[in-house]
Amino acid sequence: MQTAADSKLSGTLRGNMMESQLLVIDLLDFGRKTFPQQEIVSRRLEGDIHRYTYADCWRRTNQLGYVLNALGIQAGDCVATLAWNTYRHMELYYAVSGVGAVLHTVNPRLFSEQVEYIINHAEDRYVFVDLGFVELLEEIQERLPTVRGYIVLTDEANMPNTSLPNVLCYETLLDAQKEQYAWPRFDENSAASLCYTSGTTGNPKGVLYSHRALVLHAQATVSRALLDMDSDTVLLPMVAMYHASAWGAPYAAPLAGSKLVLPGKGMDGASMWELIESERVTVGLGVPTIWLTLHNYLAEQNITETPLERVCVGGAASPIGMVRAFAERYQVYWQPIWGMTETAPLATSLPPTAALMALPAEERYALQTTAGRAAFGVEMEIFDADDQPVAHDGSSSGELRVRGPWICRQYYKNDDLSSFPNGWLATGDIAVIDEQGYMRVVDRKKDVIKSGGEWISSLEIENIVSLHEAVNECAVVGVKHPKWDERPLLLVVLNKNMQADADDILAYLNGKIAKWWLPDAVEFVTELPKTGTGKVRKNELRYAYFHYLTKQGTAS
Amino acid sequence: MQTAADSKLSGTLRGNMMESQLLVIDLLDFGRKTFPQQEIVSRRLEGDIHRYTYADCWRRTNQLGYVLNALGIQAGDCVATLAWNTYRHMELYYAVSGVGAVLHTVNPRLFSEQVEYIINHAEDRYVFVDLGFVELLEEIQERLPTVRGYIVLTDEANMPNTSLPNVLCYETLLDAQKEQYAWPRFDENSAASLCYTSGTTGNPKGVLYSHRALVLHAQATVSRALLDMDSDTVLLPMVAMYHASAWGAPYAAPLAGSKLVLPGKGMDGASMWELIESERVTVGLGVPTIWLTLHNYLAEQNITETPLERVCVGGAASPIGMVRAFAERYQVYWQPIWGMTETAPLATSLPPTAALMALPAEERYALQTTAGRAAFGVEMEIFDADDQPVAHDGSSSGELRVRGPWICRQYYKNDDLSSFPNGWLATGDIAVIDEQGYMRVVDRKKDVIKSGGEWISSLEIENIVSLHEAVNECAVVGVKHPKWDERPLLLVVLNKNMQADADDILAYLNGKIAKWWLPDAVEFVTELPKTGTGKVRKNELRYAYFHYLTKQGTAS
Repeated sequence: MQTAADSKLSGTLRGNMMESQLLVIDLLDFGRKTFPQQEIVSRRLEGDIHRYTYADCWRRTNQLGYVLNALGIQAGDCVATLAWNTYRHMELYYAVSGVGAVLHTVNPRLFSEQVEYIINHAEDRYVFVDLGFVELLEEIQERLPTVRGYIVLTDEANMPNTSLPNVLCYETLLDAQKEQYAWPRFDENSAASLCYTSGTTGNPKGVLYSHRALVLHAQATVSRALLDMDSDTVLLPMVAMYHASAWGAPYAAPLAGSKLVLPGKGMDGASMWELIESERVTVGLGVPTIWLTLHNYLAEQNITETPLERVCVGGAASPIGMVRAFAERYQVYWQPIWGMTETAPLATSLPPTAALMALPAEERYALQTTAGRAAFGVEMEIFDADDQPVAHDGSSSGELRVRGPWICRQYYKNDDLSSFPNGWLATGDIAVIDEQGYMRVVDRKKDVIKSGGEWISSLEIENIVSLHEAVNECAVVGVKHPKWDERPLLLVVLNKNMQADADDILAYLNGKIAKWWLPDAVEFVTELPKTGTGKVRKNELRYAYFHYLTKQGTAS
Repeated sequence: MQTAADSKLSGTLRGNMMESQLLVIDLLDFGRKTFPQQEIVSRRLEGDIHRYTYADCWRRTNQLGYVLNALGIQAGDCVATLAWNTYRHMELYYAVSGVGAVLHTVNPRLFSEQVEYIINHAEDRYVFVDLGFVELLEEIQERLPTVRGYIVLTDEANMPNTSLPNVLCYETLLDAQKEQYAWPRFDENSAASLCYTSGTTGNPKGVLYSHRALVLHAQATVSRALLDMDSDTVLLPMVAMYHASAWGAPYAAPLAGSKLVLPGKGMDGASMWELIESERVTVGLGVPTIWLTLHNYLAEQNITETPLERVCVGGAASPIGMVRAFAERYQVYWQPIWGMTETAPLATSLPPTAALMALPAEERYALQTTAGRAAFGVEMEIFDADDQPVAHDGSSSGELRVRGPWICRQYYKNDDLSSFPNGWLATGDIAVIDEQGYMRVVDRKKDVIKSGGEWISSLEIENIVSLHEAVNECAVVGVKHPKWDERPLLLVVLNKNMQADADDILAYLNGKIAKWWLPDAVEFVTELPKTGTGKVRKNELRYAYFHYLTKQGTAS
């Protein structure tokens, strides 16, 4: 799918269909009409479990519409949230976009300078903030000139003592309002929400989603090609609503009529398991680390029976060891996903079709470590350094580029188009695509190890090492080498009560990868540094270990 | 969802998403990339069974793109088809819209004057015609000034002797072309196809579908709210590709990766069953009469085991007797659907959710005689004679009106907007909607019997009579009455080898409807007149029996 602009036909006949616009508010409206009694269950910041229905959510979202009007929010204004996964955040998702304003989900795990930068860059008018993030705002509030006030997402009884100016209480504001809001209709290309990505260098960059993009993305999300959700699905997004819209779960759930379980800030194994068990969660969304956390907790507790049917996993490569463990220990399908903030975020997946499940287990597990195939609407291609498309042969690699109606074409208020060559989004991932359209990310462009002018994929080595029974997690980074420029260093976190030394690990790798790919050294660590979304901070590791080989004198 | 035009917000911020357009050709492109080996099986007009894959279909559709260019077809030109359900017709669906032209599917069951009228009204440039419809065109070809030539959908060996001018052979044209066509990109609001509806009065009216409408409709079609299709589905559209796009099956199948079984012109019970059995069809699409035909055939043959899982039924009300027979005799779910040519056509359905299937059988059957609920994207409302919305209480009735992105806003080259009040499509159906959103058509506006100023629903009487064990089919029409203006006359077709008289039937009705709804007379007939799409021609019955009560002297 090319963009319309590049080859518009002139003189064609227009169809005689209604110009109904695809707006975000219609997703919740559909959910409350079609599945009024379906539940949204939240672990609140106040500590208890809250449950209500789509009908209730609709009622309060309507009240919130009036609140936003009363605050003077205009169409096109940005409204920030610093909040975990709860029903109140969901109400903001719909009401802010619903009145024509822009929901800016701020990632509170960013450095406070970055939070300050993005609130100012977005020119946010108000900030809706969860208990627990108030202090973060107190630190920077004097440098947020566009912000007119702060609304704490709690009731009067739980209002904190704070130095923030113009502080209001969410529940008090809602209580004062009526329940029948007349949602405006407008162009589907209007901005609905805004999320900043934090690169390893430079300032965060904003992705400004349109209503059209979010609705089309929600339709793709519930389809069998991606999350395959319906009214029997109980969905637990263990991905944050402050980052890439929790993979769009708040938009997709009402469309599918799924029960939505929102974990608040409870990202640890025990909290997660409590919700999975008590709410009979069937589908989880999360990065590999989250499922490793769950796996570690269940292993400790000797639990193998779960109500889970699938875990949908993205944000990092799927280690085959985890794929196998979830299949064989828990009878849970590990469903790989690929996407990024710039792709709203879901773009590819590998759903458990009858044909896939009929394959021999090892063949299926291998496919589950790919990113699957593109959903309808997403076109993907790989390109070499000269911008030429690379063959889809399963071995030739190139930079992955994508295009489609829910993919970013430019960062917000940013003239740097270097990530958008020729109408594509350049993803920064190096990938291969095979004849059947299965895509595999072989590395991040910046994580590839350049050894003597050739490329070594850190990911492929990690995938194999993760299979070793003693290994809990690992990371491979390129570190300085006097002769080869860069060589791979392997960092390993061992499983509790298990042992292995460098020779064991290297012997395990031997024969499974090219000899010259073998890491020059293995370092055992107690943990790996992670980003707010659970990805290993490779740039931090590279920085910390950059002189590792030259210092240790192991270079050869 | 209102139309954008009526309340556009000014000054809102536009999202920064790619403006990728939703085009029909992308559906087949997705299917051939993602499910290249999935099959399309057709009963050909030549008599044999033809099978090929989505990859083959794509290759030939590309060749057809070149053929259309060679014929001089321009963007916006209309190209007619008079064709049954086969792979060649499917190729035309994609190639004609794909090059930017408009696929005009002509219903060959119309009177030849109507066929002539619509070809001239659409200004069709070429006509692609199946063996068997050539004679129809020979009759009228002298009065088709815009038509430059005729392409017969067959190979050289089967070309007919015909008096048509400028006759070409489809397979010969394709054979001469290359297989890699560069499909143009253009505005998704461009017209993609055209279908005329034949009212009972006046000239047929054209519905001009846009690419956007057809793609959004296809996405809704494959979703669980409507046909719930996936790559395990084997779909048999027993609805014609010349009318309302066979309910969009040719567009939805590649998107879902379903196997498509196209019955050619074989609409009889034996031909239908042969395909269902040999191709292991899981889902059928058709009007109630089609499934009655199948039921009659299976009953004759003493067959109760079928590979069918669901029959999706629209175009007329679902009789509860058929719902029950399919459930209890065949273990097949009767899935009701509502839609019309003006709605692309699917708008509502009742999918077999876990919640529905858990209901007691009789409660479920009753719901299956409703039209189900609106799909996401379709807004529906009922209005009284003063254009005021009527309560959704399950008993108040009003005219059904719908709006949404795949709903017609005006007929093609037709300034009469009386069917489009205030941005809605007025459907001509009288319906009730209940608190849960289930919609039930109680009658066609024109079929309602006006007896002494009150309304009698012909449909409700038919639904009950159809439950009588001796009744195969029935119809109720309003006929002239000297005192009450109109009174109901019941026409009955009995099952083979079963007997019943008027008193039996009326006794069966007694107590199940209001006394004053009881038909004044019962007439036994051997068959009911049907339209090309299998609906009972009530206007014909009304005309034929208009003086029945006054002539017979049974008026009281």
